Amino acid sequence: MKDELFRLIDILGILAFSIAGAFAAMQKRLDIFGILIIAFITAMGGGTLRDLLIGDLPVSWLRSPVYSIFIVAGAFLAMVFHNVIGNFQKTLLVFDSLGLGFFTVAGIQKGIAFGFHPGICIALGTLTGCFGGVIRDISLNNIPLIFQKEIYATACIVGGFIYFLMDGLHLHRVPADIICIAVIFVIRMLAVRYKLSLPSIYKK
Amino acid sequence: MKDELFRLIDILGILAFSIAGAFAAMQKRLDIFGILIIAFITAMGGGTLRDLLIGDLPVSWLRSPVYSIFIVAGAFLAMVFHNVIGNFQKTLLVFDSLGLGFFTVAGIQKGIAFGFHPGICIALGTLTGCFGGVIRDISLNNIPLIFQKEIYATACIVGGFIYFLMDGLHLHRVPADIICIAVIFVIRMLAVRYKLSLPSIYKK
Amino acid sequence: MKDELFRLIDILGILAFSIAGAFAAMQKRLDIFGILIIAFITAMGGGTLRDLLIGDLPVSWLRSPVYSIFIVAGAFLAMVFHNVIGNFQKTLLVFDSLGLGFFTVAGIQKGIAFGFHPGICIALGTLTGCFGGVIRDISLNNIPLIFQKEIYATACIVGGFIYFLMDGLHLHRVPADIICIAVIFVIRMLAVRYKLSLPSIYKK
Repeated sequence: MKDELFRLIDILGILAFSIAGAFAAMQKRLDIFGILIIAFITAMGGGTLRDLLIGDLPVSWLRSPVYSIFIVAGAFLAMVFHNVIGNFQKTLLVFDSLGLGFFTVAGIQKGIAFGFHPGICIALGTLTGCFGGVIRDISLNNIPLIFQKEIYATACIVGGFIYFLMDGLHLHRVPADIICIAVIFVIRMLAVRYKLSLPSIYKK
Repeated sequence: MKDELFRLIDILGILAFSIAGAFAAMQKRLDIFGILIIAFITAMGGGTLRDLLIGDLPVSWLRSPVYSIFIVAGAFLAMVFHNVIGNFQKTLLVFDSLGLGFFTVAGIQKGIAFGFHPGICIALGTLTGCFGGVIRDISLNNIPLIFQKEIYATACIVGGFIYFLMDGLHLHRVPADIICIAVIFVIRMLAVRYKLSLPSIYKK
Repeated sequence: MKDELFRLIDILGILAFSIAGAFAAMQKRLDIFGILIIAFITAMGGGTLRDLLIGDLPVSWLRSPVYSIFIVAGAFLAMVFHNVIGNFQKTLLVFDSLGLGFFTVAGIQKGIAFGFHPGICIALGTLTGCFGGVIRDISLNNIPLIFQKEIYATACIVGGFIYFLMDGLHLHRVPADIICIAVIFVIRMLAVRYKLSLPSIYKK
């Protein structure tokens, strides 16, 4: 059952990020293949880098075409609805934040399964959650969101600490996962909504 | 004999891409080392990413200096002839399209050798063909060609389908390889020549 | 003892590059997390790519949190002193050149340990030394220093040749390492100071 939960979280993350990737690509008015490629990069970038660094090869999406099917499905959903939904920026943000939550948890759990130090697991989760968006932004010639003022990685790191806190409290895994995903989602959304940022280290 | 054919296709791809990379670098007036580095990135980028994702490590160019020698040879050829050839853009295009054909076939064949699903093999071939050009363009601060209107990846994917179609028809491998390479080359050249593009999904 | 020397060189390189990375990030006025991420990318980028290409996985910084601790220490040192030190550009250059020397030697030694050809070892050293700076520059949306006129990679390659020259002369490893690091540092500093560059291949 544990493995099924991990797979479900992984696939929800893939769907959310492929939709977010497709919206970002449509903002730049790419053609259909461009949109599919950006959706793929966004959805698989984080997990691919994680599996490369761990050495869990071949990477998951080479072993089974299921992942690609979900990405194509997510991208087509985004394409179908892009004329209906007025506010690209907001839609992108919601799916981006959802994907961030799902993937951070997926990354932390994979780190635990490989026996890494909790601090390293949080780093792996953050990287799994953030890297897809980073290479999407670099590919689209945008300045990566993560390097800008928005508290992007911070959400993942706080979520990661809460994950291990709940682990220490022997909370069951399903509620722990859901709480962690929700915390990351909410921090990210609030940070953008209220333009929260880390305290500046620069003199005016 | 099969392995020798694979090696030949691989090396022809390396030569074509190192020449294309060197021309792109000279357009930006890089110095000699810059040109060599861009030639190397263009020629080895796709195969390196493929081998990383598969887990076929160490990557080929670490195991033998032969690859590097061909890349240096290609880059020097390009440097010697750059004052003779007037039209950089056209020359770059021809070698880029040739390399695309060679490397897509090499990637598909490696995928088959590792027992992946045909759809995954086509993706691996496309990635092998396209990724070198993508990181070349990112390194030179150009918008990657693949994300623009030109049908770049499409050529690889169509070529890949034809490859498996011929495989299903039990065609001998040598003609199958040549036809597949030729199809990719011709689609890419025609797409640029006649400014072909995928149908737009955007309202005017 | 050999292993301890390797570790020392590696950690000195990490410290130097995390400081250089933090200074580059502060020039762009990133927030604290942005600075930490850029410090990490700069310090671990080269070694990570090297270990990925070799297949020495999981990469070192996943196996032990020690590396991350040194990076955070380096970044905080840079943040504390950034208001004291007036000339960012010069400070960045000194630490960047030091890190280049340390990491090139670390990369060469790892290549030797894996039994690669000397030419490949020099390439691995160059890549270990240069790649962190390249992805730092790409992440900060700067044109990578390595592709500009400054003789960046050249310093690593000359240093690499000297390393194998001394190896042929059966010099003890400690002085050989120090000489090689010093040569790379001095070439890099002189190249920037006197604006040395490779001869141009272009007509005026």
